[in-house]
Amino acid sequence: MTPEEFRRQGKAVVDWIADYYEKVESFPVMAQVKPGAIRASLSKSAPRQGEPFESMMRDVEKLILPGITHWQSPNFFGFFPSNTSFPSIMGEMLSAGLGVQGMLWATSPACTELETHVLDWLVQMLDLPRKFLSTSAGGGVIQDTASNSSLCAVLAARERATRYASNERGCDGKLVAYTSAQAHSSIEKGVKIAGIGRENLRLIDVDGNFAMKPEALDAQLQRDIAAGRTPFFVCTTLGTTSSNAMDPVRAIARICGERNVWLHVDAAMSGTAALCPEFRSIHDGLELSDSYCFNPHKWMFTNFDCDCFYVADRNGLIRTMSVLPEYLRNKATESGAVVDYRDWHVQLGRRFRALKLWFVIRYYGVEGLQHHIRRHVELAQEFASWVRADKDFELAAPAPLNLVCFRHRGGDEINQHIMDRVNQSGAMYLTHTRLRDKLVLRMSIGQTNTELRHVERAWKCIREAAAASA
Amino acid sequence: MTPEEFRRQGKAVVDWIADYYEKVESFPVMAQVKPGAIRASLSKSAPRQGEPFESMMRDVEKLILPGITHWQSPNFFGFFPSNTSFPSIMGEMLSAGLGVQGMLWATSPACTELETHVLDWLVQMLDLPRKFLSTSAGGGVIQDTASNSSLCAVLAARERATRYASNERGCDGKLVAYTSAQAHSSIEKGVKIAGIGRENLRLIDVDGNFAMKPEALDAQLQRDIAAGRTPFFVCTTLGTTSSNAMDPVRAIARICGERNVWLHVDAAMSGTAALCPEFRSIHDGLELSDSYCFNPHKWMFTNFDCDCFYVADRNGLIRTMSVLPEYLRNKATESGAVVDYRDWHVQLGRRFRALKLWFVIRYYGVEGLQHHIRRHVELAQEFASWVRADKDFELAAPAPLNLVCFRHRGGDEINQHIMDRVNQSGAMYLTHTRLRDKLVLRMSIGQTNTELRHVERAWKCIREAAAASA
Repeated sequence: MTPEEFRRQGKAVVDWIADYYEKVESFPVMAQVKPGAIRASLSKSAPRQGEPFESMMRDVEKLILPGITHWQSPNFFGFFPSNTSFPSIMGEMLSAGLGVQGMLWATSPACTELETHVLDWLVQMLDLPRKFLSTSAGGGVIQDTASNSSLCAVLAARERATRYASNERGCDGKLVAYTSAQAHSSIEKGVKIAGIGRENLRLIDVDGNFAMKPEALDAQLQRDIAAGRTPFFVCTTLGTTSSNAMDPVRAIARICGERNVWLHVDAAMSGTAALCPEFRSIHDGLELSDSYCFNPHKWMFTNFDCDCFYVADRNGLIRTMSVLPEYLRNKATESGAVVDYRDWHVQLGRRFRALKLWFVIRYYGVEGLQHHIRRHVELAQEFASWVRADKDFELAAPAPLNLVCFRHRGGDEINQHIMDRVNQSGAMYLTHTRLRDKLVLRMSIGQTNTELRHVERAWKCIREAAAASA
Repeated sequence: MTPEEFRRQGKAVVDWIADYYEKVESFPVMAQVKPGAIRASLSKSAPRQGEPFESMMRDVEKLILPGITHWQSPNFFGFFPSNTSFPSIMGEMLSAGLGVQGMLWATSPACTELETHVLDWLVQMLDLPRKFLSTSAGGGVIQDTASNSSLCAVLAARERATRYASNERGCDGKLVAYTSAQAHSSIEKGVKIAGIGRENLRLIDVDGNFAMKPEALDAQLQRDIAAGRTPFFVCTTLGTTSSNAMDPVRAIARICGERNVWLHVDAAMSGTAALCPEFRSIHDGLELSDSYCFNPHKWMFTNFDCDCFYVADRNGLIRTMSVLPEYLRNKATESGAVVDYRDWHVQLGRRFRALKLWFVIRYYGVEGLQHHIRRHVELAQEFASWVRADKDFELAAPAPLNLVCFRHRGGDEINQHIMDRVNQSGAMYLTHTRLRDKLVLRMSIGQTNTELRHVERAWKCIREAAAASA
């Protein structure tokens, strides 16, 4: 394809995307297809000869679109936000166009330096501890997901606890990790991947607000130490996936500090709230942690993937992850004057992801981002007030930010009916969890274009579904 | 930003990308900036108020472009190809625009089904073993990198060897992994991450062509078994990063089969060659392997990231990687009728990466892809013939496909001078490795737009640099 043809086709794709956002509310939010239906519509084998690009775009419209669940619809309230924005989309376009590899500073200096720079900006913007700045002993890196950030934290903690012996000799079966019973599934996954074993992950009890109980953590640590085990890693969550619970970081950090246990803080979903000074108290105690992550690809208008991972001691992380073969040696690396991000995560290759983040921050500005975050929290609080005021419904957990966990008082069955009914209607989409062994509906408000009218309509749908299911 | 403004700005970005490709040959291939220079040009803190999008594009041109090493330049011969194409860029654009999460089938059915479908296409296109088809007991998934594919293979192997006990109780220190002394650094990294330990990774000797010696593997396996250890994983490489060496898969597979050891085949760089029937012999014995990967994001015109990972037994992989929290439960998953790719890798979230792969395959067609691959191999073979014919230079390894390892006969110092000189000239870019303890230059030919004239000019540059350094 010539650059001239790309000008034509690429602009048609831009128009297609703009059209998509103009009409996204007209689609059923949840795809209404049956398993296998999309595949059945696709050609059985790859074409021998090339096809015109127009055919692909026709098939996207005709075959793919019906199988899309519209995460960018303002009526999407499921799971967690995975919001995006036009400046971010253009960042992705440029990143794809440049097609550079940022594995080493030397393989594209701007890719590394812009990333370091923007991650330092975010330390200021969220008022994170100064030890996470690249100008200190720590630093930040873009990872694909919080799952991988957690894995890297587990690994760096494992190596610190064993004086880098696990990397050499393998795990010894004595290490114990801790998180709350409400933590994200990726913590268990990371602990298993790292060879620690699920049995050596303690799921600490939570309080009435689904936050980790520091005294329960302390008691468990003491029991494990008494049994000759080595506690090495605690993961706290700021904004659990299930109910947006906030673990008390400061109290937990004190316990970790006394015993030299690595403290990781997973704020994947809620960290973005700290853009606004009034929500920064969620980070209380963060200066005592060893690592931290939050996801601009969730609630900061930045395309997936973009998780920001910070460590207080970058040398420990690098020592854990680095393998340097001859074919990657270069003068810049050997000078010690540059950052090589390949040593900060599992992958070697890496895209130029800082571009989209830079675009989003500059296009919105700090005040623009604050405005949208505040608006989402206000909408969620308004929704929570409607739930509170309705005799048939109740809140199932505190709603500190933009997630409201609620349920119909009529029991699990009616809540399941409500969810199925509103999702099948296509008018909106929400998902569920279980809290205190009860089915709970989750209203997650954070799509870029969600306004009061969408939330009002969602509440109306939910009440109508409840009436129809009663 | 309104859809209207996005139409305007997005089209300007499309033009910027088209302009970039039209003038990419005019840039020095390797960025000529000093460490810290890019950062020093960037604004110290994030803007309070938003900025017009035009400012960002001006800064991309003025501040970022000088810090780019141009992987998409036809004069880029460094490391490995990371080639892209306009259809792939448009796939990325659409994926960014739709902004869907493909972690579960239910979170966007088309994202999962198109991926399964295209990975089945590729089994046909590369004539891979039928056991990798989704209609068999195996299947394929898009991973970000071969590093993560290798890690998943190590983990699935670890679990199979311990009857899924390592996931539960942690590693026991008895497992031993094997790869060649020429394997990619990601194998060592994966073994360390998985808690096996570097000391339990045996680097098997290679023959004169830098391929693993099956008899050396067999002898090492016997020694380890005699010592009470448990061999669990062998990684063979088809196309080593250093010199494009091809391990003898069939002979190694027989040894693995006798001892029930997992065989992973890493064809990240060279697997694409199997699009052409005349190169398919590299895959001889692949039907005896347990897992396989190759990277369309290297040599198949598809934007990073896009690694295709296949397993013969998908249930083993899923059992290794799956953690199912309540908030991800859904009827489609429970019906057993769908694939949930989150259970096939480390990450939970995932982008719609199948779109770009589908676009590339359809736009080029199988014959179009074959044409380009053949052309790259021809160019490399022509380059190798020039090296052979020149009394000052010699080949340093066989050049079976598109990578030529060569050196000036004058010793390491002159080769280092040649490399530094051609790279600093900006006219071309190549990188090095060490083979038999000698510095070797690597000419990797695989950029989408590289033609004979670029390779001819590169050879001229290299000879001129040699003359100037002598």
